[in-house]
Amino acid sequence: MRQEYTLFKSRISKLKIGSEVINSAIKVGNHTIGQGQFSIIAGPCAVESKTQINVISQLVKQQGAHLLRAGAFKPRTSPYSFQGLGLEGLQLLKQVKETFNIPIVTEMMNEKEYDIFEEIVDLIQIGSRNMQNFDLLKKVGQGSKPVMLKRGLNATLEEFLLAAEYIVANGNRNIILCERGIRSYDNVTRNVLDLSAVAILKQVTNCPVIVDPSHATGITEIIPTMSLAAKSTGADGIMVEVHHNVKAALSDADQALSPSVFAQLAKAVA
Amino acid sequence: MRQEYTLFKSRISKLKIGSEVINSAIKVGNHTIGQGQFSIIAGPCAVESKTQINVISQLVKQQGAHLLRAGAFKPRTSPYSFQGLGLEGLQLLKQVKETFNIPIVTEMMNEKEYDIFEEIVDLIQIGSRNMQNFDLLKKVGQGSKPVMLKRGLNATLEEFLLAAEYIVANGNRNIILCERGIRSYDNVTRNVLDLSAVAILKQVTNCPVIVDPSHATGITEIIPTMSLAAKSTGADGIMVEVHHNVKAALSDADQALSPSVFAQLAKAVA
Amino acid sequence: MRQEYTLFKSRISKLKIGSEVINSAIKVGNHTIGQGQFSIIAGPCAVESKTQINVISQLVKQQGAHLLRAGAFKPRTSPYSFQGLGLEGLQLLKQVKETFNIPIVTEMMNEKEYDIFEEIVDLIQIGSRNMQNFDLLKKVGQGSKPVMLKRGLNATLEEFLLAAEYIVANGNRNIILCERGIRSYDNVTRNVLDLSAVAILKQVTNCPVIVDPSHATGITEIIPTMSLAAKSTGADGIMVEVHHNVKAALSDADQALSPSVFAQLAKAVA
Amino acid sequence: MRQEYTLFKSRISKLKIGSEVINSAIKVGNHTIGQGQFSIIAGPCAVESKTQINVISQLVKQQGAHLLRAGAFKPRTSPYSFQGLGLEGLQLLKQVKETFNIPIVTEMMNEKEYDIFEEIVDLIQIGSRNMQNFDLLKKVGQGSKPVMLKRGLNATLEEFLLAAEYIVANGNRNIILCERGIRSYDNVTRNVLDLSAVAILKQVTNCPVIVDPSHATGITEIIPTMSLAAKSTGADGIMVEVHHNVKAALSDADQALSPSVFAQLAKAVA
Repeated sequence: MRQEYTLFKSRISKLKIGSEVINSAIKVGNHTIGQGQFSIIAGPCAVESKTQINVISQLVKQQGAHLLRAGAFKPRTSPYSFQGLGLEGLQLLKQVKETFNIPIVTEMMNEKEYDIFEEIVDLIQIGSRNMQNFDLLKKVGQGSKPVMLKRGLNATLEEFLLAAEYIVANGNRNIILCERGIRSYDNVTRNVLDLSAVAILKQVTNCPVIVDPSHATGITEIIPTMSLAAKSTGADGIMVEVHHNVKAALSDADQALSPSVFAQLAKAVA
Repeated sequence: MRQEYTLFKSRISKLKIGSEVINSAIKVGNHTIGQGQFSIIAGPCAVESKTQINVISQLVKQQGAHLLRAGAFKPRTSPYSFQGLGLEGLQLLKQVKETFNIPIVTEMMNEKEYDIFEEIVDLIQIGSRNMQNFDLLKKVGQGSKPVMLKRGLNATLEEFLLAAEYIVANGNRNIILCERGIRSYDNVTRNVLDLSAVAILKQVTNCPVIVDPSHATGITEIIPTMSLAAKSTGADGIMVEVHHNVKAALSDADQALSPSVFAQLAKAVA
Repeated sequence: MRQEYTLFKSRISKLKIGSEVINSAIKVGNHTIGQGQFSIIAGPCAVESKTQINVISQLVKQQGAHLLRAGAFKPRTSPYSFQGLGLEGLQLLKQVKETFNIPIVTEMMNEKEYDIFEEIVDLIQIGSRNMQNFDLLKKVGQGSKPVMLKRGLNATLEEFLLAAEYIVANGNRNIILCERGIRSYDNVTRNVLDLSAVAILKQVTNCPVIVDPSHATGITEIIPTMSLAAKSTGADGIMVEVHHNVKAALSDADQALSPSVFAQLAKAVA
Repeated sequence: MRQEYTLFKSRISKLKIGSEVINSAIKVGNHTIGQGQFSIIAGPCAVESKTQINVISQLVKQQGAHLLRAGAFKPRTSPYSFQGLGLEGLQLLKQVKETFNIPIVTEMMNEKEYDIFEEIVDLIQIGSRNMQNFDLLKKVGQGSKPVMLKRGLNATLEEFLLAAEYIVANGNRNIILCERGIRSYDNVTRNVLDLSAVAILKQVTNCPVIVDPSHATGITEIIPTMSLAAKSTGADGIMVEVHHNVKAALSDADQALSPSVFAQLAKAVA
């Protein structure tokens, strides 16, 4: 046994995240993540308009998505990029959730918005850039709303688990981990999807693990294949970007699946 | 000319951070950073007690430090590590600032604390983990208190400058950039100090640039040498960790300089 | 479509490696790699003794391995580590090949040994450290013996394909590409297995692609899982380390599978 | 003291490379590298023609270069790029060496060429791609001709020193280490110049250390600054690319200094 891995497991074994305190099946609205079911989370990068979110929500729901993903608050590298519709976007998500009876996952960037997220959102996403925003982690840890924590762009697995531990240590045991690619030196793919991490996370924690091949690769042509590979490693589901009009998307247009490719993917992983 | 660098410069040239909107000499309490002077920022990783911060403040001030650094709010990888003294630490910093007449730089992790930071602190540090905590950047951007933004652990230079741009775009033109090492594959050093980044930042922005060789290398033996190298690249100063009782430090004990080594270093770079 | 990937594909399309000049099914002794069959290559890191290589060869053959892997010439980081049995090791491989009727893959480090490799070996491995040893590539390119080229430890996909192109450009069209993990910053795994690379290589070349989860992860516990994931991405086979007495292995003891784990793995991927 | 560094030093202390077996001042033709003198190695990426190498040799010699660098055998990523003039290039180097009385450093890629290198060349360069081409290291280790070993593109310091140890273990004690940048995730610079590595190498070995800011950064605008920074870290010299007609260079045109910039640089570091 590799020594570094043995030491890692020994350290992790002292955390709550590796123990049965953590729920391995997590109720997210009317859907359960974990428990042997492979969940499909799909939707656009961002809520752009009432029409857009309605069209896509209906579409992904029909094709088999269990949760709708769409950003209302968007962490954008440049201050001059589209920053999301904010509270207006949340209200649109509330409406499609009711119309299509589909649970909602969306990113929270500021603890000030916790109350409105708790009311509207079914699964609160903490994004990669905020993986070590410890006050944000404490805030969602103090509630009981399920949290999906995305791995930081170059977080070690230990840093990732210790970030999750901030949530558990504050009392919330409904945590889903999300592998979304790590930064590397080759810019052909957006990041490097680290599927070994999924295999390890499934061994050392009780948490469900979701894989995001859209951000990890940025290449629509291989997203279906990588989704199947994620399933082979024991992942509990995938989260993918889908847009009904890919070329018009306001963010991440490169990596969104078209409706027809998504339909095939949803069948393939079912 | 390397094509990627040419394209980078072209994109950066459209930002305010590269223009004369930015102050190149920044008044921090009774000291000016920039303007050809090489600034020395020194102090412990964290405020630990009244005695500790008094002893170290007196010591670094006597040896030539221009600013005192010490963390009150500490972003720690594990929730079970010492998290800093918080507001109590800030009050201790206020007291040593008055006693020793030395400006204070310390990290702000939560926008809720902005008012107390604005009152007590001379230079607000935004740490590496929060480089892309955009709401925090906007908050300090809306004030006029000088901000030192540390480069994220694997931020590209463009991401670093766009994060700084969030501050400028909100109106604050008192920005200091800090290179503190990037993550790499060799664990002999804590990180890799990227001095080429300093040379480039001095070319494409008007901001003062500070180098943190303590976090970048984690090896006390080479910190003095790397401080001199930083000066050679055009850096406007260094920020180093100093502790009067290195073995007893509550955080980052490995990389703190002893008083005598700091004294030599301060002379060498003066 | 991601722009960098589009440009990459456009450049690659001008190479022979992406064209039908390349054989997509490669005869290696009595076995064919490619053509829809999932190949299992197994054996010890190094030939250590006549007994050891006989025991392991019989074992992996019985359990379903199609090729035997074992190093005679070993590229070791330290000059003071076991360097392999060299020519004596090759002769032992020749003997087990005949005894057990199993083709042999082993690493060639020096073009001087080409003739003996051509005589004895069925598939010549060029190791990661030699991926850009261009004279070695030219030498194997001038023959017709099949070559398995391992990706360099931090080679981009384009560098990898251009290295393979050195072989094709010299006339050899029997090339198998091997993904074996890239170096990253987290030492919990030995390297990061880049399965997206496999999906891309299967899109842009005609070559069979083999995955080496032993070197990529270094963690025996996840090697079976990662082998299945490799199959999901379209890989044409795996290469794994197996040892009958793991604790006594002279090299890479950490990552060798025991006979019983290998037996399960071979069934799972069949 | 950082634990990983302490362990590293302990392991290195058992190698010959860290002991007085190694020469700290190395005679290279009529010049000595080490011994407190800062050496300047300059010249084109490749020998392109008799005229080109004569013009540049005269130019760099006049401006203060101590050694001429120029590739005859070029390790190129693509088999379709200019591969160097080979033996013809070596003969041209022999001629300019005699004409201008300047020692020559050039890269050897194949042990078959050792005898001609030993005859003509003053300092044999082993390039980054061949840092772990162990047979090549053994070959140059068996001679007494000085060797400059370049760090691999993502070699740890320990791997770098163990590669050098292959040379020492075979008897050659005239070794110069060259830091030339490590691969990272930001493509604005070609690589990341790791000057901390220089400080550490000067602490743990007796070897002279040369810095190559041309390959490390790929940005001519910052090469002079980074050369000064290299000197500050204790490097024994720099190696830079210079071309009299930068735009017409057959390789690495982006990073070659013009004659006038080189002249300024040579003065600055003298």
